[in-house]
Amino acid sequence: MAEEKEKQLGITEKKDGDFSEWYTQVILRAELADYAPVRGFMVIRPRGYEIWESIQGYFNNVIFSLGVKNAYFPLLIPESFFKKEAEHAEGFAPELAWVEKKEGEEKVAIRPTSETIMYDSYSKWIRSWRDLPLRINQWCNVLRWEVKQTKPFLRTREFLWQEGHCVYETEEECWKETLLFLEEYRKLVEEQLAIAVVTGKKTAAERFAGAKETTTLEALMPDGKALQMGTSHNLGQNFAKAFEIDFLGKDGGEKLAWQNSWGFSTRLIGAIVMVHGDDKGMVIPPRVAKNKVVVVPILFEKTKKKVLKFANEINSKLKEFNSFLDDRDGYSAGWKFNEWELKGVPIRIEAGPKDMEKKQCVIVRRDTGKKRFVKVSAVKKEVFAELEKMQKDLLGNSKKFLKGNIVEVRDWNGFKKAINDKKMVYAYFCEGPACEESIKDETIVTSRCIPLNQKIPAGKCVKCGKESKEKAYFAKAY
Amino acid sequence: MAEEKEKQLGITEKKDGDFSEWYTQVILRAELADYAPVRGFMVIRPRGYEIWESIQGYFNNVIFSLGVKNAYFPLLIPESFFKKEAEHAEGFAPELAWVEKKEGEEKVAIRPTSETIMYDSYSKWIRSWRDLPLRINQWCNVLRWEVKQTKPFLRTREFLWQEGHCVYETEEECWKETLLFLEEYRKLVEEQLAIAVVTGKKTAAERFAGAKETTTLEALMPDGKALQMGTSHNLGQNFAKAFEIDFLGKDGGEKLAWQNSWGFSTRLIGAIVMVHGDDKGMVIPPRVAKNKVVVVPILFEKTKKKVLKFANEINSKLKEFNSFLDDRDGYSAGWKFNEWELKGVPIRIEAGPKDMEKKQCVIVRRDTGKKRFVKVSAVKKEVFAELEKMQKDLLGNSKKFLKGNIVEVRDWNGFKKAINDKKMVYAYFCEGPACEESIKDETIVTSRCIPLNQKIPAGKCVKCGKESKEKAYFAKAY
Repeated sequence: MAEEKEKQLGITEKKDGDFSEWYTQVILRAELADYAPVRGFMVIRPRGYEIWESIQGYFNNVIFSLGVKNAYFPLLIPESFFKKEAEHAEGFAPELAWVEKKEGEEKVAIRPTSETIMYDSYSKWIRSWRDLPLRINQWCNVLRWEVKQTKPFLRTREFLWQEGHCVYETEEECWKETLLFLEEYRKLVEEQLAIAVVTGKKTAAERFAGAKETTTLEALMPDGKALQMGTSHNLGQNFAKAFEIDFLGKDGGEKLAWQNSWGFSTRLIGAIVMVHGDDKGMVIPPRVAKNKVVVVPILFEKTKKKVLKFANEINSKLKEFNSFLDDRDGYSAGWKFNEWELKGVPIRIEAGPKDMEKKQCVIVRRDTGKKRFVKVSAVKKEVFAELEKMQKDLLGNSKKFLKGNIVEVRDWNGFKKAINDKKMVYAYFCEGPACEESIKDETIVTSRCIPLNQKIPAGKCVKCGKESKEKAYFAKAY
Repeated sequence: MAEEKEKQLGITEKKDGDFSEWYTQVILRAELADYAPVRGFMVIRPRGYEIWESIQGYFNNVIFSLGVKNAYFPLLIPESFFKKEAEHAEGFAPELAWVEKKEGEEKVAIRPTSETIMYDSYSKWIRSWRDLPLRINQWCNVLRWEVKQTKPFLRTREFLWQEGHCVYETEEECWKETLLFLEEYRKLVEEQLAIAVVTGKKTAAERFAGAKETTTLEALMPDGKALQMGTSHNLGQNFAKAFEIDFLGKDGGEKLAWQNSWGFSTRLIGAIVMVHGDDKGMVIPPRVAKNKVVVVPILFEKTKKKVLKFANEINSKLKEFNSFLDDRDGYSAGWKFNEWELKGVPIRIEAGPKDMEKKQCVIVRRDTGKKRFVKVSAVKKEVFAELEKMQKDLLGNSKKFLKGNIVEVRDWNGFKKAINDKKMVYAYFCEGPACEESIKDETIVTSRCIPLNQKIPAGKCVKCGKESKEKAYFAKAY
């Protein structure tokens, strides 16, 4: 029976085979998420949710140190609010889920994002420059009734996210912090999730509905598609006008406020799967793994009791890594190896009777599969070093992949060839909406971002040939 | 201008005056919550949400140590699911908010609780006794379209909560853990929130829709009304039958699972306000206060710089209490005292030029207003001791109040008099639905709970006089 289970348990598709099928298998079999009874929804299972909790814990510390406070605003938004900022309303209208109207009450929709409901409160709370800056974040669920094909974590009708919403006295401060939050996102994604990204601003076509400027970070997945990892929007005064967020300035005059908003979602978990997962299943980067170590005893009838005790001792030395001992009966050590590899635990420790005699154990890294004997007396130090090294190597691999798959092109033929080769393109771009539209029409490719502060000579737009000041990244996108 | 602000800032109603008005003023002016644009909803502001985060942090540790894992299930529940467990469906039907039906998709409602959607997944996940016990919790928003008068934290259409849902092999294990979670709730409420409670089981009339047995903890508010602080339900096999949660038993036979569910909500924040708040505003029990200490420097022109430095030094000694320095310009020390009293910070430290000379400062407790001079060298130790004492005193006061306001009565006249005197009643009760109905009709009073394991001789039901084995608590309720 164990044999039979083993077959069902593992991933049967290769990562470089049918990538989409491989992804779905990892999600389901590593028990990160499951399909829900309503189409386009998902259940985030404990092993997936643990990663979200790690990200929350890290990011709360970051934003608290920047003066951001968490709060919670209502799920339901009145119809009239959506009409206040015209672009915003138009952008979200097709994806809204309306609640059946209750008699005598205004029609309401489930939030697709919370700008409008939050700014209604902000306009009441903000009276004077003394109330600024106001920095509030919320962790919540949002709903966008997608008609496109959905996929767990990557595109679902409901997802979890954080949305930060700040208000400032001046435009300078607002823009400065828009970029500060983008930089914190980059640090989160690169240093915690071990995923390399490019950053920059969006073109008008890709901008958030109602924003003056959207900044973004984009990662490249193994199938050559870009994944947007988070966005930080400079809203300018668009919403401040619509929601009358004004304040008494230091000079005694009435001023209109400046705002930004910034968010990332549970989509990040999908990115981790795609970037780090392999043919054996999930690989969780050490810093976002709740249980960083599993200790598996190698048991034989004769020495079982002693070896269990020995494995327990090792486990107790590794508590700061949230290690756990897999002492389940009725499963072979091999079965356990496979299970924890599938589920992505960063480090496995094997401890058998011979190891016990030699006061040693085996450390196995999930990403490389490399085994190393270490003395039990040094196990804590060795595990710490191995986790650090794994974290660094995962990011190193991701950086190498990203660098190796960005192709700089000069003309439209080069562009099309690179996209065919599943590359991300870097090229001069005029930023004209018509030009962007025609790129999209011909190739399904969208501009991903335009790096900030480019100090380059002008060049010819890759599509229309018009003189252009900046280069942009292009790719097919999730 | 500061003077004028001061007037608006404070609470203008007394706690023993119009209690409901006092409560609302504390909620709004201590900035714990605000009204939302949709009727019956609220915005949980950062100072309220911080308390929720403290509760979450504490309780996550508790449940993790008991083997519970967090997860996240969908917001929207298919219509067909509500029909599977008849009592459950009937109980929640009037309060559901339905989403406007999308073409080609099943009608869905926003979750009022998640039994049905979770158990649909459970029936897929659970195959054998090896998969049990399964213990999953989620922190989420739920929606119940209340028609009664709503009140921030106490009764709102949307609220935040945790809902734990466990599955067991045996009835014994299920009941044992139903009581274990109830006991953890008692510890949370008494030891963290410093609120005394009585515990027990609900009568059939007050039971959760679909449960076999509901256990509860009930606190008594200063206005003589009981507040349900959390419930832990033994679901028996009702949902297991409806959702076909069966498993292969150890003996090879097909078994039906046993289940419990347990939850508490942001209502707990309302309880803290009512129990501990006073005429000056909010009082946050130390263990659930994020910022346990505020340092207010007493500034005069001449010594300003030095005293600020001195206050900063004190503040830096108190980082483990998340202390903060209020060094704002343009506000008097008195204004600051009032503000942090209103907002409920447990301990205030005052530091002026004379204190600086004597290397001392003043510790002021929020609950008693008592001041004490302490040496700066001992400030950390003294603050720690004072916080512990305050926590203990708050619970002591709450226990005293509860004990002093439970009246044991023998007959219906005694019952009515006690209720008129705003007491909680303890009396023999036959548990007959008709009897309970007539008590409610005559007095708006409901049975709150029946203590478990009563070892008392039989007595006469306080209403109908029938011989009864157990006593029950009664009160008007929120």
